Amino acid sequence: MIKLSEIPTTPPPHIDEEKIKDETKRLVDRLGKLQQVMYAERKHSALIILQGMDGSGKDGAAKQVFEQCHHYGVQVYSFKKPSEEEFAHDFLWRVHKQAPQKGMIQLFNRSHYEDILIQWVHGWIDDQRAEQRMKAINAFEELLTFDNNTLVFKFYLHISYEQQAKELQERIDEPDKHWKHNPGDWKEREHWADYMRCYEYAFNHSSIPWTIVPVDKRWYRDYIIAKTLVERLEKLQMEYPPLPVE
Amino acid sequence: MIKLSEIPTTPPPHIDEEKIKDETKRLVDRLGKLQQVMYAERKHSALIILQGMDGSGKDGAAKQVFEQCHHYGVQVYSFKKPSEEEFAHDFLWRVHKQAPQKGMIQLFNRSHYEDILIQWVHGWIDDQRAEQRMKAINAFEELLTFDNNTLVFKFYLHISYEQQAKELQERIDEPDKHWKHNPGDWKEREHWADYMRCYEYAFNHSSIPWTIVPVDKRWYRDYIIAKTLVERLEKLQMEYPPLPVE
Repeated sequence: MIKLSEIPTTPPPHIDEEKIKDETKRLVDRLGKLQQVMYAERKHSALIILQGMDGSGKDGAAKQVFEQCHHYGVQVYSFKKPSEEEFAHDFLWRVHKQAPQKGMIQLFNRSHYEDILIQWVHGWIDDQRAEQRMKAINAFEELLTFDNNTLVFKFYLHISYEQQAKELQERIDEPDKHWKHNPGDWKEREHWADYMRCYEYAFNHSSIPWTIVPVDKRWYRDYIIAKTLVERLEKLQMEYPPLPVE
Repeated sequence: MIKLSEIPTTPPPHIDEEKIKDETKRLVDRLGKLQQVMYAERKHSALIILQGMDGSGKDGAAKQVFEQCHHYGVQVYSFKKPSEEEFAHDFLWRVHKQAPQKGMIQLFNRSHYEDILIQWVHGWIDDQRAEQRMKAINAFEELLTFDNNTLVFKFYLHISYEQQAKELQERIDEPDKHWKHNPGDWKEREHWADYMRCYEYAFNHSSIPWTIVPVDKRWYRDYIIAKTLVERLEKLQMEYPPLPVE
């Protein structure tokens, strides 16, 4: 059982920041290499879900960790408010379209989990619907896994309530962050406890497990994500295909 | 447990053909009216799956039964061999895209069931994969039902082995049916027993039940399909929305 209040949002004490940064650089380079083989081999794909409260650094992670990956092999889809057409379908309709084809890494900045987070927190769906959706999410992620060799990674960017205030305030104070400021984020912050409850529900009912990433220090965030990805992808023992016989 | 060999492919004996045809006409008219309200109300949608061996009359059913429906409210999607892009995804990827939005009737001429029929019959997938796909199909159809008010109808067009031969031969003998002739259909016919086994598996493991439609007589086919649809749609008690208040 995951309880967020028991998990630190900061790196372990006495950890050597410089050493971790060097190691992260090595991992990010390695990830670039692995992405290239995945693209060439076209046997597997990866779906990488980044979830977290406003200011938890989803955009930053999507940039830094994948810096050495080719753009043709990585796609980012940022989930916004659904369109009218999307609303006239089940909640996974727009999500399934964005599932990665073999060879590709697909990043989700937010995801189908919002359909049991923001929607549940605000009471737009009831408990029963949230439970039905959780089951549908499990079936969907399992489908990608067994039928398309998709590795599904799910990262929760775990930020403290105090750190979020600093991050949101920076968007007001620093001119080149103004474009990220949204007064609505401060309003959502009032529902913090409810969000934590819904997140915990998702973590504890997911068939594919989550990685909880302490993000109060960005350098530690990148390290954990890169490490998780590289360790798992190495296990696939992917290889460049041989020269085709004429 | 459905066993196809125990279900007749012909209408019940002594049934009055003329009476049934009159009744079918009434039902087809009524279906047209129901489709109009569904489109106007935009609360529900319908997914109508037509499956059956070659020559079982899927095209004919899709035309005759929906003759009084508006084209803007009915879409037909005919499933062919997947494209390269579709093959690089899970089997439901291309199917989910075609799920109906609220207000619409979506007809599937063949469907995701082919992924546990033709593929299993020919050994392109093993038993385990077929079972996994069956579970994924159930989860998918349930998702459409609970999250988008989609009524899922599944019709198996039950034709006899002898009647199929006649239908396929007509495609050779009659000039205006030549375009439907495909030598591959005669080859698939050799796998008849395997197809029946896979179909029965699907019927007996589906969470949303199938309607088995005797189709050796086309007039009886249309009657059963129209009757099933109308009876179910009547129960929704759909209504035209009132004039919006300015």
